[in-house]
Amino acid sequence: MSQHAQHVAVVGLGLIGGSVAQTLVADGRRVTGWDPDASTRELAGAACVEVVATLEELAASGAPLVVVAVPLRAVRATVEGLAASLPASTVLTDVASVKGPVRDAVQAAGLGDRYVGAHPMAGTEHSGFAAADPDLLREVRWAVTLDETTNLDAFFTVAEMITGPFASVVHPLTDDVHDEAVALVSHVPHVVATELLNLVVGSPVSEVAQGLAAGSFRDGTRVARTTPRRTQAMVTDNAGWVAAALRLAARDLEVLASQLEEGAQVDEFFDRADPIRGAAAPDRSTRSLQVGADGWQTDLTERGRQGAQVVAVDPGAASVELSEGRAG
Amino acid sequence: MSQHAQHVAVVGLGLIGGSVAQTLVADGRRVTGWDPDASTRELAGAACVEVVATLEELAASGAPLVVVAVPLRAVRATVEGLAASLPASTVLTDVASVKGPVRDAVQAAGLGDRYVGAHPMAGTEHSGFAAADPDLLREVRWAVTLDETTNLDAFFTVAEMITGPFASVVHPLTDDVHDEAVALVSHVPHVVATELLNLVVGSPVSEVAQGLAAGSFRDGTRVARTTPRRTQAMVTDNAGWVAAALRLAARDLEVLASQLEEGAQVDEFFDRADPIRGAAAPDRSTRSLQVGADGWQTDLTERGRQGAQVVAVDPGAASVELSEGRAG
Repeated sequence: MSQHAQHVAVVGLGLIGGSVAQTLVADGRRVTGWDPDASTRELAGAACVEVVATLEELAASGAPLVVVAVPLRAVRATVEGLAASLPASTVLTDVASVKGPVRDAVQAAGLGDRYVGAHPMAGTEHSGFAAADPDLLREVRWAVTLDETTNLDAFFTVAEMITGPFASVVHPLTDDVHDEAVALVSHVPHVVATELLNLVVGSPVSEVAQGLAAGSFRDGTRVARTTPRRTQAMVTDNAGWVAAALRLAARDLEVLASQLEEGAQVDEFFDRADPIRGAAAPDRSTRSLQVGADGWQTDLTERGRQGAQVVAVDPGAASVELSEGRAG
Repeated sequence: MSQHAQHVAVVGLGLIGGSVAQTLVADGRRVTGWDPDASTRELAGAACVEVVATLEELAASGAPLVVVAVPLRAVRATVEGLAASLPASTVLTDVASVKGPVRDAVQAAGLGDRYVGAHPMAGTEHSGFAAADPDLLREVRWAVTLDETTNLDAFFTVAEMITGPFASVVHPLTDDVHDEAVALVSHVPHVVATELLNLVVGSPVSEVAQGLAAGSFRDGTRVARTTPRRTQAMVTDNAGWVAAALRLAARDLEVLASQLEEGAQVDEFFDRADPIRGAAAPDRSTRSLQVGADGWQTDLTERGRQGAQVVAVDPGAASVELSEGRAG
């Protein structure tokens, strides 16, 4: 198995899948692509993607790496379709914004050990291949998820793509840590922006509130204004972690409301985030780490949980370049 | 009384008061200013503000309009100090982000009928005269609050300043409507941004969440990161309306959390704001409205509650140019 996939197959050629394909094409790699939508396939074909007519054809294309970039609701059928004809050595990854449910689907299809989850932390409010951009997913943060069964070559193949053509860092994580963290920095903020709009629309002073809203309110609710269905899909895909965080938020807001009504001190609420407020980014140092020995996956994701990032890989030496923060 | 104040006195020369002074100086008006801080007075003096040494001197400066731009906690003492030596014809306004408590203080000092509340909907995360900017409060939205005792000349004096040198529109409102609306589009969003930071700092995956946070999270929590004390002051100044909105938000988030946990439909939550989502701004038409007859204040603020804005004033004709939206 090569850990440098010069040929990559991409399933689903929307905003994210299309951007993945375009970045790899721009890097000079061969890209085979398929999308259920015929006009999308046509657009991709005109952008130097080798478009095939069926998922089975894509699975049989010989690409050593397949990127699944379909909506979460379509992942199960997609990986089942792939599993039927995928060569045993082919590595599987995806770009979904929630990782636990994808691994469940991949394991159910019998592809667990060769699967490495990936989630590029970027996007726009647009969708479709026409909105794809070869730079959208470059030089951004990519979460990469492993479990204790993840194949080392599969990890190297995916990490090489991210640190190579995508010029990005890899945050190695377990699915749970990823899904909990993304609930906090993406899904819950989207819910809250939606709720801010809901409060305005439901208010007796709705006209005035809309009239007075300054740029900061408009900016803060932009995503909630433009893509409610996509937000809803992200949130329901990660329902467990989102619900848990929403309960914490609701409790905190209730407590603050009571304190305000009683004229009590509210310093604690506003001071609580001081540890991350204005904190300088920690000094980071880079060192080589051997991977592949028993338990390397758990070792790597545990380091990732503490903030370590993979900035380069050396499959020949079975090592990664690890960037770690040092408590200042 | 002139309704075109060629001479304006500004009490408090921080970010907002300093910007008011700079805009008026740039417009060629005479500006008298005072600030309790000596170095601020020095900066203002170098920027063509006629700086006086005491509040009493400012009250006696002969300016027909005084703008109070001190923190809310200092408003009561400031207006009491002014009341002792202010000529009977002097108009009083302010720039605080909450209006009910300011009117209470002004009325307690016996200055109620000549007071018109004002709140420019703009700002930055910086503070102090050095951060002031003659364009900060130009071409923005200004809320202006009246009650049934507001003097017509006082209203014209303040509205002329806003529509003239500040080139801004006037939203005529009652204090309550203003304070409720601003809770929704400013104070509650600031609280919520703070809570998003609090959730991250309190999480077992805090390091990962901070590492994965993309630009949208950083942008959305910027204000909560940089000025927690100022946010706290705004929120506590408007405690009643903020608390009420926070209770609604907490209830909505709890309901959504339950729906997510039960796998129930959540379309309603994400659809609720459809009436304002992507809605085109209503067609607006401008017409002249006579003011000054009995009950003109209530008439004007009722129109303001429905979205009307004053875009120009004609004190000689006792009329305002009113811009009103038409249901499309």
